[in-house]
Amino acid sequence: MISRDVFSSRAKGMQRSVIRELLKLTSQPDIISFAGGLPAPETFPVESVRKAVSEVLDNEPATALQYGATEGDIRLREDLAGIMQEDGTPADPARLMILTASQQGLDLVGKIFLDPGDTCVVGLPTYLGALQAFKSYQGVPIGVELDDEGMPPGRLSEILDRLEDEKRRPKFIYLVPDFHNPAGVTIPESRRREIISIARDRNYLIVEDTPYRQLRYKGEHQTTFQKMAPDCVLSLFTFSKILLPGFRLGWAYGPDWVIDKMVMAKQAVDLCTPPFCQAITHHMLVDGALRDGLKEKIVLYGGRCKHMLSCLDDTLSLVPGIHWTRPEGGLFLWLTLPEGMSTEDLFVKAIANKVAYVPGSSFYPEGESHRSMRLNFSYASEEQIETGIKRLASIIHEEL
Amino acid sequence: MISRDVFSSRAKGMQRSVIRELLKLTSQPDIISFAGGLPAPETFPVESVRKAVSEVLDNEPATALQYGATEGDIRLREDLAGIMQEDGTPADPARLMILTASQQGLDLVGKIFLDPGDTCVVGLPTYLGALQAFKSYQGVPIGVELDDEGMPPGRLSEILDRLEDEKRRPKFIYLVPDFHNPAGVTIPESRRREIISIARDRNYLIVEDTPYRQLRYKGEHQTTFQKMAPDCVLSLFTFSKILLPGFRLGWAYGPDWVIDKMVMAKQAVDLCTPPFCQAITHHMLVDGALRDGLKEKIVLYGGRCKHMLSCLDDTLSLVPGIHWTRPEGGLFLWLTLPEGMSTEDLFVKAIANKVAYVPGSSFYPEGESHRSMRLNFSYASEEQIETGIKRLASIIHEEL
Repeated sequence: MISRDVFSSRAKGMQRSVIRELLKLTSQPDIISFAGGLPAPETFPVESVRKAVSEVLDNEPATALQYGATEGDIRLREDLAGIMQEDGTPADPARLMILTASQQGLDLVGKIFLDPGDTCVVGLPTYLGALQAFKSYQGVPIGVELDDEGMPPGRLSEILDRLEDEKRRPKFIYLVPDFHNPAGVTIPESRRREIISIARDRNYLIVEDTPYRQLRYKGEHQTTFQKMAPDCVLSLFTFSKILLPGFRLGWAYGPDWVIDKMVMAKQAVDLCTPPFCQAITHHMLVDGALRDGLKEKIVLYGGRCKHMLSCLDDTLSLVPGIHWTRPEGGLFLWLTLPEGMSTEDLFVKAIANKVAYVPGSSFYPEGESHRSMRLNFSYASEEQIETGIKRLASIIHEEL
Repeated sequence: MISRDVFSSRAKGMQRSVIRELLKLTSQPDIISFAGGLPAPETFPVESVRKAVSEVLDNEPATALQYGATEGDIRLREDLAGIMQEDGTPADPARLMILTASQQGLDLVGKIFLDPGDTCVVGLPTYLGALQAFKSYQGVPIGVELDDEGMPPGRLSEILDRLEDEKRRPKFIYLVPDFHNPAGVTIPESRRREIISIARDRNYLIVEDTPYRQLRYKGEHQTTFQKMAPDCVLSLFTFSKILLPGFRLGWAYGPDWVIDKMVMAKQAVDLCTPPFCQAITHHMLVDGALRDGLKEKIVLYGGRCKHMLSCLDDTLSLVPGIHWTRPEGGLFLWLTLPEGMSTEDLFVKAIANKVAYVPGSSFYPEGESHRSMRLNFSYASEEQIETGIKRLASIIHEEL
């Protein structure tokens, strides 16, 4: 028999994602699930996909069904640079590469920066997929506790001081500045400037992961880290939340020396992102599908977000010590129960009562938060949200 | 400025693929290129794709455009298990996972098995993408020189003896048994049994990479390693050569403890392979597109292979010390020039004379073979093959 010792050290440390396993549990049709991070399928631009596929198959099957460049379809790279330009970043397609979804961006960041034991700074909480990607290279994510405005610069400086003193200088600072997953908070522009100033003074790379930026339901857009500091910011984007997830398409934009190494790494990872999906998406963008779809999503998700907040206000606002964030966009909010309660213990009861969430411990490098949960408001209808929050509130009240 | 020392050790060792860079050079329309590994676009089943896309968008847009399971679409996994069963392997869909092309399989193999400095056994020559994937985890590929029947068991045993003595026991044995890329050779069944016996006696995992298996133009199918030794063989497959490359779809089949770890690793790499491409492919398989397309490809590529061999016979058979392999299938043959000649030196002259190949050194872990070249016969037409081989022959004759 082959010894299981044959696995690499990094593989021995790998575990199945709790969320992905939970999603299986919560896919029963009578459970109202706030657990996933799924966009609403009723927003998928099916007719636009159909039209774009026809154009691709009529006019360019020999390239769209063939291998493509590792950097991606140059037409799509130019489209995306254009989209970034509309958002205020003077983007150059040469510094932009296509990814097989932004999760691949996180994997490549881990791959090109993290040796075993290397540290990187992340938020507490932070996106589970980033933790998995960084840990899969035996990187050590060091958390900075977030507040209602994202990562506090003072706490960031303290952590950097400590790590530098310990000769454990982090390789990069990982941020989700807009409508953070899972925290639902946004870093205001003034704080972004402070964080950039810290990074520049100490020569750190910032990794800006911004999958939801275009999904703002109220308040003002905050300038991207990329626009403010193109010399030291690598930005990751995805179509999964703003268009559709089924093509697995994202992109990275950053300093040429970083993009160049990411392209080299991607050659060995998957050669190229599906040229078929890239060609379709190019035609959809030309056709205005992203612009039109965003308007619809903002109305739908904005309404669901507002409704979930109002249901929480109605049912849980009198509970002493409870707290939830009030997102201005994105897909998630973050709820913290009173001292002494555990969202992990509550989970079994929630499932029994046909409502699901993700326990917050999944979003901590060491699984150390037990009072928090992530609630998704993009997938369930307003009616389901109302019923689901009532179910959740009643088991919280019972536990008190 | 951010120090370039911020890169991981593995990233510092990464280089751009010579082939991918060469392909850029050889894409000028007047160059006849035998360099790439591209399938012929005239074989792409465009109408079958169109029909399958309609079915998907009419009947299942909510799942095909959504996120999917990391393991892949269960319908496609069952289809593929069926295809393996037709090939003689009693395949179980539970041991089969979908990959974002088989290059991802190689990446995951590197990721779950190779710690820095770990060895693995490969052929000399071996597939460039495998070398890149294994080296990207700082693995050390140890080469066993191939002969006209693939990896010789005697040489394999000797290398294993030496590595075991040196306490550098390899993590796996990597083989391309059918129509090897780049060597064009196939391991006969009797030799497969010997290799399995060596692996079993010493408890090694065999990684069987078989992208071309269905593309046999003459001779008899040799039983897969997977069928003969399901306990110790991980097999990698891809649609790129047998259907089309533009969906980036492949699959892995192997022992559950290996597949289970690969699925965990894939969660952090790209969450899932594009569900849209998987759904389309499922409908194409039901529709018979693979079966029908293979018949057409076998006629077309078989003719091109035969024609290239006959052009080589006509122009180069009298050169003393020259040798080329005579593939029974696949996409490539391997030509070795007489002592003292260098295919790297010849390359510039070849490009100037409007013909291209890949210098063989790309397929050696340390770039140590200088007399060999890989010739692809699937992409160029028979007329182009004739002209291209004449050009190549005349510069070889000039060099003599």
